[in-house]
Amino acid sequence: MTSNLKESARTVLTPLVVSGRDKLVRHEIDQLGDCAESGLLVIDLNNVRWLTGFTGSAGTLVVRPDDMVLVVDGRYGDQAREQINISGANCTVIEGRSAVAIREALVDATKSLKNIFFDANELTVYQLSAMSEQLSTELVKISPIVPKLRRRKSEPEIERMQLAATATDKALTEVVPILSQGLTERDIRDELDYRMRRHGAEFTSYDTIVASGPNAARPHHRPVGRRIETGDSVVIDVGGLVDGYHSDMTRTFLIGDVDPILSEMHEVVSQAQLLGLDFVKAGVLAQDVDKACRDFIAAAGFANEFTHSTGHGVGLQIHEMPWVRSGFAEPLAVGEVVTVEPGVYREGLGGVRIEDLVVVTQTGCRILTSSKKDRQCLQLQPTT
Amino acid sequence: MTSNLKESARTVLTPLVVSGRDKLVRHEIDQLGDCAESGLLVIDLNNVRWLTGFTGSAGTLVVRPDDMVLVVDGRYGDQAREQINISGANCTVIEGRSAVAIREALVDATKSLKNIFFDANELTVYQLSAMSEQLSTELVKISPIVPKLRRRKSEPEIERMQLAATATDKALTEVVPILSQGLTERDIRDELDYRMRRHGAEFTSYDTIVASGPNAARPHHRPVGRRIETGDSVVIDVGGLVDGYHSDMTRTFLIGDVDPILSEMHEVVSQAQLLGLDFVKAGVLAQDVDKACRDFIAAAGFANEFTHSTGHGVGLQIHEMPWVRSGFAEPLAVGEVVTVEPGVYREGLGGVRIEDLVVVTQTGCRILTSSKKDRQCLQLQPTT
Repeated sequence: MTSNLKESARTVLTPLVVSGRDKLVRHEIDQLGDCAESGLLVIDLNNVRWLTGFTGSAGTLVVRPDDMVLVVDGRYGDQAREQINISGANCTVIEGRSAVAIREALVDATKSLKNIFFDANELTVYQLSAMSEQLSTELVKISPIVPKLRRRKSEPEIERMQLAATATDKALTEVVPILSQGLTERDIRDELDYRMRRHGAEFTSYDTIVASGPNAARPHHRPVGRRIETGDSVVIDVGGLVDGYHSDMTRTFLIGDVDPILSEMHEVVSQAQLLGLDFVKAGVLAQDVDKACRDFIAAAGFANEFTHSTGHGVGLQIHEMPWVRSGFAEPLAVGEVVTVEPGVYREGLGGVRIEDLVVVTQTGCRILTSSKKDRQCLQLQPTT
Repeated sequence: MTSNLKESARTVLTPLVVSGRDKLVRHEIDQLGDCAESGLLVIDLNNVRWLTGFTGSAGTLVVRPDDMVLVVDGRYGDQAREQINISGANCTVIEGRSAVAIREALVDATKSLKNIFFDANELTVYQLSAMSEQLSTELVKISPIVPKLRRRKSEPEIERMQLAATATDKALTEVVPILSQGLTERDIRDELDYRMRRHGAEFTSYDTIVASGPNAARPHHRPVGRRIETGDSVVIDVGGLVDGYHSDMTRTFLIGDVDPILSEMHEVVSQAQLLGLDFVKAGVLAQDVDKACRDFIAAAGFANEFTHSTGHGVGLQIHEMPWVRSGFAEPLAVGEVVTVEPGVYREGLGGVRIEDLVVVTQTGCRILTSSKKDRQCLQLQPTT
């Protein structure tokens, strides 16, 4: 910390226009039958944000046949109006300065509707029972609509994920030289998190993983005070957040001479990951990308040590649809953003995972994460 | 980032023994009537952690008349067993390596029960409906039990919050000298977050707030690229996380000569905060602490500009019971940890909030946050 601390990088973002998204919701509602006078209740904040641009920590949205109404508390009236002004949503903001006022606003916003659909994943049992008591209109449970629509990203959404990915690429590039200097997992994590922000991420997308030596055998290890040493594999799984959108990337480094099995694991995972990337294309079933990686790893003899799925969608949430895993038989579509991240883990020895974030295209995919991943870049010589 | 980067501070923590907590739950269940063969379903991860010590990202706990059963997926079997071994919980871990296996384990864990209680705030409508289909035992909705029990902290829990608070105190002390050098809100935020980790916090407890000038009029402002300048009030609201436990602290700095109204706001909030601290004591109603601060601020002419409650409980969640606000008429008890944080905000001009984290004692309270808050320490001279 010095007086010549440079200002962190910031880019002017393309505005994220959300107008028209409510029409997509109404189109889905229409598929449910005679729903001309039906509305949708939205309380999941990522769904509210996707439809309106509002980023506060509380708010209830009603999608009605001709408009939307967002009910917020006293903290968020000004902010909601400003954000909706920018996003272009066809949405009126009602600010309730007390619990009673908020309830009345919701009653008011829904009384013209014949029924109100809700996603059973969004409401708690308590919320449903409170809403049912308060509202005069019947609440009807349906399958998720908005999370399905959120799968396909617009260019401004992809721009944000690209910036988040670039921030982590730059942070990782700066940290690689100290990886082999005997520092602890936590030290490396602290540097990565600090540096990705200086390069434009607003926050970490999730708890950064730095897992070394035997710790690397656990896919979700949290950094501890263990010093990174010769013979380790070091799994670094790091993501950033830009304007609400996440990125996700993993690289695994080898420090000095490692066990031949670890070396083999690295080779197998690297090849499986390239194979997975090759499979990604609009129209391909998500589960087939998983199968490609899994079969390759199994053929190499590590079937039981690839203990997680190959990938997942990324957007306003770090884990969202589509799921790149066995059993998810839906085709990938242009504009969907997914991870490809096979991994192999052996108890007591270590683990290897390599992950990129990609946008599905008509002919394949565009990779948003650009940190180097060829073997000579991931193989480091100890410097202590 | 240099090769002589020092290892960050870590303290060996007193083990957090949780054995006996399940008995408290059973005692609460007994109050509900003839419940000798009843169990409690727990899926909120903070509640699961409090009862078992397990910190994974998924798991379902059943508190039964004589023991507990924790059902986890393939990622978490080893971790759960290790953590329960340390925590001393009377709990068996069942690892289900598929959705079917997890379901079967839950059926198995509950089939001897006459009914299963659940907290309506914990389960989504979807989860309740899935559980009802899967389990042969009847599910019965009850009021929250575990969040109520979590209010009173043990000494090892307070130790963790003290360490988290100390990490933010040290980070803030280091950052104060650069507050008046014309850097941006984000720059200051980045330094605080980095430094609190170097001083032993595992993570930020919440998105650190650095709000300057007109931005300070918004209690929940997120840091932007605005440069801090002469005449600003700068609200810094910062918390750390140690072994799952949060801290929470706010200080408001004044840069150079400020508007006399801002200066008055600072004086009023400072006095109100001291008054609030004076009121905290076992047996005092939480709402009366709020009223003390609120009446004082109202008498000074800022009634409409104190737009939030005076405080809240802190523990495994940054906001939890008890609520230090109007309408929460329960007495504070020894060992409860709450914030005292009055604030006054004026649109266009700025805002002032001062907050400490305190442990309720028989005779008053013990303050965990120790950053200076007298006027001469919060009044800075511009250095650019």
